[in-house]
Amino acid sequence: MEPRINDLQVESRVHELLDFPVHTNQISSAIYECPNDHIENPKKKPYNCPHSGAKCDVTGDIQRLLLHLRNDHNVEMSDGRSFSHRYVHHDPKHLHHATWMLTLLDCCGRKFCLYFEAFHLRKTPMYMAFMQFMGDEEEAMSFSYSLQVGGNGRKLTWQGVPRSIRDSHKTVRDSQDGLIITRKLALFFSTDNNTTDKELKLKVSGRVWREQPVSI
Amino acid sequence: MEPRINDLQVESRVHELLDFPVHTNQISSAIYECPNDHIENPKKKPYNCPHSGAKCDVTGDIQRLLLHLRNDHNVEMSDGRSFSHRYVHHDPKHLHHATWMLTLLDCCGRKFCLYFEAFHLRKTPMYMAFMQFMGDEEEAMSFSYSLQVGGNGRKLTWQGVPRSIRDSHKTVRDSQDGLIITRKLALFFSTDNNTTDKELKLKVSGRVWREQPVSI
Repeated sequence: MEPRINDLQVESRVHELLDFPVHTNQISSAIYECPNDHIENPKKKPYNCPHSGAKCDVTGDIQRLLLHLRNDHNVEMSDGRSFSHRYVHHDPKHLHHATWMLTLLDCCGRKFCLYFEAFHLRKTPMYMAFMQFMGDEEEAMSFSYSLQVGGNGRKLTWQGVPRSIRDSHKTVRDSQDGLIITRKLALFFSTDNNTTDKELKLKVSGRVWREQPVSI
Repeated sequence: MEPRINDLQVESRVHELLDFPVHTNQISSAIYECPNDHIENPKKKPYNCPHSGAKCDVTGDIQRLLLHLRNDHNVEMSDGRSFSHRYVHHDPKHLHHATWMLTLLDCCGRKFCLYFEAFHLRKTPMYMAFMQFMGDEEEAMSFSYSLQVGGNGRKLTWQGVPRSIRDSHKTVRDSQDGLIITRKLALFFSTDNNTTDKELKLKVSGRVWREQPVSI
């Protein structure tokens, strides 16, 4: 039996909505001065902070951004080989555009950002979960990931290739490159729905893996 | 390499849109008189014709409906243990509400209806594929089915329980109990999309199976 979630904050795997956009400018000025040789080698070009809350202007290489995500955005790290997160909201019907706290995932020593968002596709309320790779597109394409939601004898599974964080998470979301779930299905999959008022308690499970290079 | 579909009619697995709603009333009057004992036993209550085109008023038991589907609606039968159908339309952007010809699937001697529809969820153009069982809900729940679309390193898979044809296919569609794909993703998954004008050529593969009874 799934643990009844009485106090949403206690559930360690509960991902809270970013109610208050994180103002990073008072955390530190742009702490990452780009080395002067980044223009020649695009791979050395600094990355933008992948945080999904309010626009964060911090840039840097992957190591610096990992520290920044942990220290300034309090982002948690999970094991990317197998994970399961529950996204919760008490009043989904009145939640139009929202971003949950991103989760950092580790797989084969590489890092991935797992996003979960409520948004509207034209006028249809949707949720979307997707993953991005902290590194360049070339290496991103050597990985695959899957995300799954389910309940009541039904399962929906997305398998895809994580996009590099060179693409903004909005770009990836708008290209629909991830697991898209209508609000209706998300509530259907939310556990404890025998209560009349429908809360969102959507469990998203998944994994990341490195594809075996195809020998020619 | 997938066979290039130059002449859509030739591709035996191509599922044509029901351009002309099938008027069944001139085929035969309601040929199925209900036996007078159907009121006592709900299981004996005749089924409505599950055809997805224009409203068909024919009713009867499963055997009669199978003959009717084959003879009057020219519905094809496929092997339900593993199938793959390609749904095609030359101008998906201007296709708002449409129903493709349903496919009959056989598994363990039981029959299933595979539906594919274009519809709008509020204002968002979607496609949906789902399955219904030709028989009662009780036996329907002993089966599971999966449907999958994919391409370019991405896959979306729905696994569910087929609903009985006691439920109209509109009811099942509106309850979103099936594989829902946005038009954008459907075109992304359509092969041969290096042409500028985007045609729908969506391959839906899947299977039906009977679940093993759980021994207590």
